[in-house]
Amino acid sequence: MKLAYLGPQGTFTEAAVLQVAAPGDELVPLASVDAALAALREGDVDRAVVPIENSVEGGVPQTLDSLGSGSALMVVREMLVPITFVLAARAGTEAPDVRTVSSHPHGWAQCRGWVADNLPLATYVPALSTAAAAAGLAGDATYDAALCSPLAAQRSGLSVLASDVGDNPSAVTRFVLVSRPGPVGPASGADKTSVVVFQNDDHPGGLLELLEQFATRGINLTRIESRPTGDALGRYCFSIDCEGHISQARVAEALMGLHRTCSQVRFLGSYPRADGVPPVVGATTSDTAFDQARAWLDTLR
Amino acid sequence: MKLAYLGPQGTFTEAAVLQVAAPGDELVPLASVDAALAALREGDVDRAVVPIENSVEGGVPQTLDSLGSGSALMVVREMLVPITFVLAARAGTEAPDVRTVSSHPHGWAQCRGWVADNLPLATYVPALSTAAAAAGLAGDATYDAALCSPLAAQRSGLSVLASDVGDNPSAVTRFVLVSRPGPVGPASGADKTSVVVFQNDDHPGGLLELLEQFATRGINLTRIESRPTGDALGRYCFSIDCEGHISQARVAEALMGLHRTCSQVRFLGSYPRADGVPPVVGATTSDTAFDQARAWLDTLR
Amino acid sequence: MKLAYLGPQGTFTEAAVLQVAAPGDELVPLASVDAALAALREGDVDRAVVPIENSVEGGVPQTLDSLGSGSALMVVREMLVPITFVLAARAGTEAPDVRTVSSHPHGWAQCRGWVADNLPLATYVPALSTAAAAAGLAGDATYDAALCSPLAAQRSGLSVLASDVGDNPSAVTRFVLVSRPGPVGPASGADKTSVVVFQNDDHPGGLLELLEQFATRGINLTRIESRPTGDALGRYCFSIDCEGHISQARVAEALMGLHRTCSQVRFLGSYPRADGVPPVVGATTSDTAFDQARAWLDTLR
Amino acid sequence: MKLAYLGPQGTFTEAAVLQVAAPGDELVPLASVDAALAALREGDVDRAVVPIENSVEGGVPQTLDSLGSGSALMVVREMLVPITFVLAARAGTEAPDVRTVSSHPHGWAQCRGWVADNLPLATYVPALSTAAAAAGLAGDATYDAALCSPLAAQRSGLSVLASDVGDNPSAVTRFVLVSRPGPVGPASGADKTSVVVFQNDDHPGGLLELLEQFATRGINLTRIESRPTGDALGRYCFSIDCEGHISQARVAEALMGLHRTCSQVRFLGSYPRADGVPPVVGATTSDTAFDQARAWLDTLR
Repeated sequence: MKLAYLGPQGTFTEAAVLQVAAPGDELVPLASVDAALAALREGDVDRAVVPIENSVEGGVPQTLDSLGSGSALMVVREMLVPITFVLAARAGTEAPDVRTVSSHPHGWAQCRGWVADNLPLATYVPALSTAAAAAGLAGDATYDAALCSPLAAQRSGLSVLASDVGDNPSAVTRFVLVSRPGPVGPASGADKTSVVVFQNDDHPGGLLELLEQFATRGINLTRIESRPTGDALGRYCFSIDCEGHISQARVAEALMGLHRTCSQVRFLGSYPRADGVPPVVGATTSDTAFDQARAWLDTLR
Repeated sequence: MKLAYLGPQGTFTEAAVLQVAAPGDELVPLASVDAALAALREGDVDRAVVPIENSVEGGVPQTLDSLGSGSALMVVREMLVPITFVLAARAGTEAPDVRTVSSHPHGWAQCRGWVADNLPLATYVPALSTAAAAAGLAGDATYDAALCSPLAAQRSGLSVLASDVGDNPSAVTRFVLVSRPGPVGPASGADKTSVVVFQNDDHPGGLLELLEQFATRGINLTRIESRPTGDALGRYCFSIDCEGHISQARVAEALMGLHRTCSQVRFLGSYPRADGVPPVVGATTSDTAFDQARAWLDTLR
Repeated sequence: MKLAYLGPQGTFTEAAVLQVAAPGDELVPLASVDAALAALREGDVDRAVVPIENSVEGGVPQTLDSLGSGSALMVVREMLVPITFVLAARAGTEAPDVRTVSSHPHGWAQCRGWVADNLPLATYVPALSTAAAAAGLAGDATYDAALCSPLAAQRSGLSVLASDVGDNPSAVTRFVLVSRPGPVGPASGADKTSVVVFQNDDHPGGLLELLEQFATRGINLTRIESRPTGDALGRYCFSIDCEGHISQARVAEALMGLHRTCSQVRFLGSYPRADGVPPVVGATTSDTAFDQARAWLDTLR
Repeated sequence: MKLAYLGPQGTFTEAAVLQVAAPGDELVPLASVDAALAALREGDVDRAVVPIENSVEGGVPQTLDSLGSGSALMVVREMLVPITFVLAARAGTEAPDVRTVSSHPHGWAQCRGWVADNLPLATYVPALSTAAAAAGLAGDATYDAALCSPLAAQRSGLSVLASDVGDNPSAVTRFVLVSRPGPVGPASGADKTSVVVFQNDDHPGGLLELLEQFATRGINLTRIESRPTGDALGRYCFSIDCEGHISQARVAEALMGLHRTCSQVRFLGSYPRADGVPPVVGATTSDTAFDQARAWLDTLR
């Protein structure tokens, strides 16, 4: 199996890939989320791993937008990776020497507080990834240090000047394993279903109606993000993760309700939750309740 | 075919029966709504005609309660009868002679205003029906006049002292033709569906949830009445008529939703509306929309 | 103080009156709910006591309709009276002799089961009240027995042939003490507020919107009844009792919400609950929460 | 007046500043949104101009997060700036020579399509801003061209190799003029109100309840974005713009409703809409309707 991922090697995405890759899989680091998903769409690879949400920075726009447009793709699994930053430099560099620091803008943002306290005079040099910032120091970079993952520092042969320099020690990023469309896997009992929903028209209360499709069937949302459709300010689609699996009646009926009332619904998959937490399903929205209601209806007509 | 109805002859119910009876049908006047529906339940008759709602007095409690409990019955048709009252007396009685007036309490209530203006000193004598009040004058009744239908006055050979004495000239009563349970007739395009719904428990917002089963599927209610369950003050069931037919997907899904979320749903039938007014069905709740949503779901799983 | 009530003496209404009458009050039995409320409106009496709801039969239409139209009246208290029936007759009459039984139609309805079991051949003679049925036996009535309250049997000097003949031993009727409009009494901590609400127009979901005015402010309803407005079939007003007192912010804001969104709101009063049960008020809808929200708003503008 | 803005000179933000700066105002370009808002909070400047939302890329996380935490700030005006990109290079560079292109990541993202079609082999060099990419070419930058605004190309003395190279010709960015807290300006008749709302706890339906505070008062939302609170995956706050002004009763009551039911509400201001479009206010939610409801309530208690 060939797996593309948001490279280069040494990023947090690689840590996510390693959670799902089997021995013998070929791992293909690519330069962007778009490139990884394009390789998948074109059949160059079998799966792609991309970040979708960070507990500090929020949703990853490129991933949300790329999954929400273009040819259909399907999420088949999610992976959680704790985000830990180190300040790394070439051997011989001491912390007081650090004047310029490179990282991906998100990495920089997540270490803002530590940098302000410890390197108040440091200048920021943007990089395409935290791993690229580290790799630069193994080459001819002109900056002094990089904010990157421990793995990237090690791979580039750097010294760690400071560990755990992220402002939020519980930061975690959620990644998804994406495939081309195919049969949905069986329900595990602790699943999520992801959709992108475009509203029918820009009428007041539209989001309320959309949410009621879930609420009236007792389905909790675990993530909801608005994304601009790109047409104009104020035109949004909603990227939504909910509890449950498309094979369950309450989820199936909610999806059909969305299909009826929204201009477009893009199903992104039903897959096991990384945290394994099963939903609390009330007596009125269990598959049994739906089956009994259907059986009752059949006796009437 | 044998049809029981709320007698005696000459009531407004008989006018409703005449709208549906075929030549050769045997019409059986019975003393009460309970008696008519009991005769139907026991197989003594094939159909029963009973009043269910009056535009002035509201729902008819005996009918609502009898349909809502006991063995299942099914409404197969509704009939509207305009309610017109006359003041009738024996030949020779003049209006100024009228001191005592008999009628059914509902008849008396619906002529209150006219009586207050025209017979301010008249005393009321209750009767079991408007027709019985008229029939009494053909016998040995000791009161002077009756408030009854023109038909009843004519049948009892009475003189009409005043016509159109009802306070509300547009008063109308809705009657239903009831059968034992059986296959539901086909949708006519302008149908109603009737149910009695018992809430799951006495939690705040319960009625709101119940109504949302209809509202989220674009189904208008044409009647809703609360009835005590008899257990205690504050315990109700709801007698509901909605637009549409059980063979239509939005109605079927709403019924299943009620079945899931309420402690009991009693289906009372889908039948053509007497006024023939078709519902306005939005693009998101048509059978086509439901079929397309189902077809889309089937492509996903 | 002069109190009118739905007479005659010996009815369950008199039992309700006795719960609230002070020594020296003059009690005025009148022939109908309309008459009692008319006497109050015209200033002939200071208060009126009328039945509003029965746990078996439901709302009392005359009371609901009379409070909901005409000049404004105000409920100042509610009283609960257990409903107990006896079969009473003249001294010397034995149970096997009973061929004809009189009562008010509601009384007859509430003893249907007992009569069917014990006097299957008895004929019903309608009366204007259970007490009138009893009183008739003290006069020249031609029927054999009456279904009435123990009090009425005693007042009319009748023998009790059978006690507790009502089908529902926990039957209770709720009565209200009504005054002309005036200042609302202080909150007791366990109060009800009553309104009659006319919808703005006959649009789908109208009842849902109305209920949301209560639900979004955490206010439970203890009674809701639809009543026809009399204009046409399908046009209703809603008679509603909710928990809480108009002096409480959540109730006041809900009432203002109804006033804005409905065509008419008739406030019928805030008064102590007969059962003394205080409402459960959440932290988000307490007076404190409303006061803090107002104070916060004032800091902003 | 001193105005800080997201610099450097020549960015789209400067175009927004020029819409609101008065002659004699001192304009202070700063390196980041955080820096501009920090300068405002500390009193170093009187106002700050920052981008808040782009029609293609969505909300600007730094702005949303900085306004949503730290000491209170207030939006006093919004400005719309059309986003137009040029490909600019040093005099003498021809399009076929371009191998490396620099821009801000958002600029690069918005020209993706044009670059893929016209410079398929070009390598991307990240820059801190589109203007910085242009300025680099006026210095010693080693890349060949910049994607920047026409203004930036002109200021840096560059040649324009291609105009209108953005993929979305109707792209627009919304900027806000921010002040320290103070009195809210008067309603213009076409206003927006901005808030950040933190939910009370992570209960299902929480977002639904939040939206109902607006919907039940007829208030349209023009923007809603979820932002992680940073605590954990799945914990969000919502950044919301709605139609209307805090001086209007429907907005004031909705804000108080949020204050009661959410754990925190941060009011970010009421200010004129850049597009001048007035809201459609229904008869049930106008200030007149609220005033009449209040007056009615006052007559009752």
